[in-house]
Amino acid sequence: MKLNHHINRVLIAGGTHGNEFTGVYLIKLFEQFPELIRRSTFETLTLLANPQAFAVGRRYIDKDLNRCFLRQYLEDTTLYNYEDLLAKNLNYFYGKNGKNPVDFIVDLHSTTANMGITILIDNEEPFNLNLAAYLSDIYPTIKVYSSGNSGRSQNALRSLGKFSIGIEVGSVPQGVLNADFFLKTQSIIYMILDYLELYNQDKLPKFPNSFILYKYIETIDFPRNENGEIMAMIHPQLQFKDYEALNPGEPIFLTLDDQTISYAADSTTYPVFINEAAYYENRIAMCLTKKYQITI
Amino acid sequence: MKLNHHINRVLIAGGTHGNEFTGVYLIKLFEQFPELIRRSTFETLTLLANPQAFAVGRRYIDKDLNRCFLRQYLEDTTLYNYEDLLAKNLNYFYGKNGKNPVDFIVDLHSTTANMGITILIDNEEPFNLNLAAYLSDIYPTIKVYSSGNSGRSQNALRSLGKFSIGIEVGSVPQGVLNADFFLKTQSIIYMILDYLELYNQDKLPKFPNSFILYKYIETIDFPRNENGEIMAMIHPQLQFKDYEALNPGEPIFLTLDDQTISYAADSTTYPVFINEAAYYENRIAMCLTKKYQITI
Repeated sequence: MKLNHHINRVLIAGGTHGNEFTGVYLIKLFEQFPELIRRSTFETLTLLANPQAFAVGRRYIDKDLNRCFLRQYLEDTTLYNYEDLLAKNLNYFYGKNGKNPVDFIVDLHSTTANMGITILIDNEEPFNLNLAAYLSDIYPTIKVYSSGNSGRSQNALRSLGKFSIGIEVGSVPQGVLNADFFLKTQSIIYMILDYLELYNQDKLPKFPNSFILYKYIETIDFPRNENGEIMAMIHPQLQFKDYEALNPGEPIFLTLDDQTISYAADSTTYPVFINEAAYYENRIAMCLTKKYQITI
Repeated sequence: MKLNHHINRVLIAGGTHGNEFTGVYLIKLFEQFPELIRRSTFETLTLLANPQAFAVGRRYIDKDLNRCFLRQYLEDTTLYNYEDLLAKNLNYFYGKNGKNPVDFIVDLHSTTANMGITILIDNEEPFNLNLAAYLSDIYPTIKVYSSGNSGRSQNALRSLGKFSIGIEVGSVPQGVLNADFFLKTQSIIYMILDYLELYNQDKLPKFPNSFILYKYIETIDFPRNENGEIMAMIHPQLQFKDYEALNPGEPIFLTLDDQTISYAADSTTYPVFINEAAYYENRIAMCLTKKYQITI
């Protein structure tokens, strides 16, 4: 596979959400030991993306940084809260017309949902799909999730790069550093860097051109009362069952007073981000996906 | 067992930490269905203890409410941040010399540590020990933790009551409502209310006068560099092993660059609150306890 690109500059970002510690501490490690991420055919940069949010242990200061990169926001001179400024600053340095444009971004995240090791792609660029196929082959327990039409391809930090991938690990509570997921994320980063090196050298091994892809369809909110208060929880039978089939009629929520609510739909879905802490304020109880066998 | 007290008023508090949702939503349930917590021999009150912190999904606004109840703070007219005011207000209503003093407080908490269902006691009052013995008998998987000389008996919200108990459940991420722990906490609350009812009626059944108690000894911080930054994580072999024996020489931390640090001490300890998110800022990686077989 050679797609006539050369990867010249790679950016590894952590702490895009300040309370997702896996990425933050990997960045600190890589800044202390840059040889860990040095490869011969490209430059590797590191970024603690939202330092003030990390300093106070929160996802963000004013608004979610990972929703700030819409072209129209970046060019809007009237937006100047903390994350809007951060986004403009990062675009200035690393964006496609920036001072040091990056060809590839790896953005490190964690989730309270039981998503194991998930590779996030935001579009179906052949470059990203091939990398996902490669990782699926050498690390069969990973899942590949396409954010599809959720908006991430336009507004996420990853959208700055020509190509990009996110790594999402969990379940990890916000504000907690979990060694197991730290080590697993670290090993995926090395696999990606090694892949990019082999790609640049035109030495990629053969790997299957087919893999499982979970594509974002829509979000579902918690049942709420007229005041907007949550009236039901993720059903215990669904909690921690990210990427498993949820069939019509199966339990999805349990009301506070112990009534089961079933999934009312015509077809099977594969929920992810089930009970993600950060999504309560966005009125998202989970994201529904469809499962595909993709052949590139 | 009759200790010549009568329990007239019980307070169930949730949301003392605004991002611990189990308690918050149990309070909302009980406010909607007060018959669930009504008993014939005492009055049961409910309290969403830190409503502003819950509204913004944080542990607290200005400072940890559950450290604000020291007598000297409550009487200090120069303290007037949000939680100091809340504490004084709660003392005015429910404290020992308040308008409606409460005889018994149940305070509902969750933790990111894997503490299962833990009963917290702050002193070794016979009344609290008897209740702990009773709960240990009818719910054998619970653990009983004495906060001992950690300061909670003086500065926690629970210290307002003549008697009190905390319920600590986990692992639950901050800002997440977990149905399983919601249901288990609910059932423990009913066991406590039923116990208090039987106690008032002098109808308590016989139960063993001996149980396992984990007593707080001290805290341990994460290894840090000269800038105060964390340099090591809870070792994967210790993560989620709350209440299990940690012996001298066994792994306790793993540095970011993959070096194991062993527990350097002379005797076995039983760590709890391992990797509690809220304790990072307090420089606490875990609390060490000693395990006792207590006989009342």
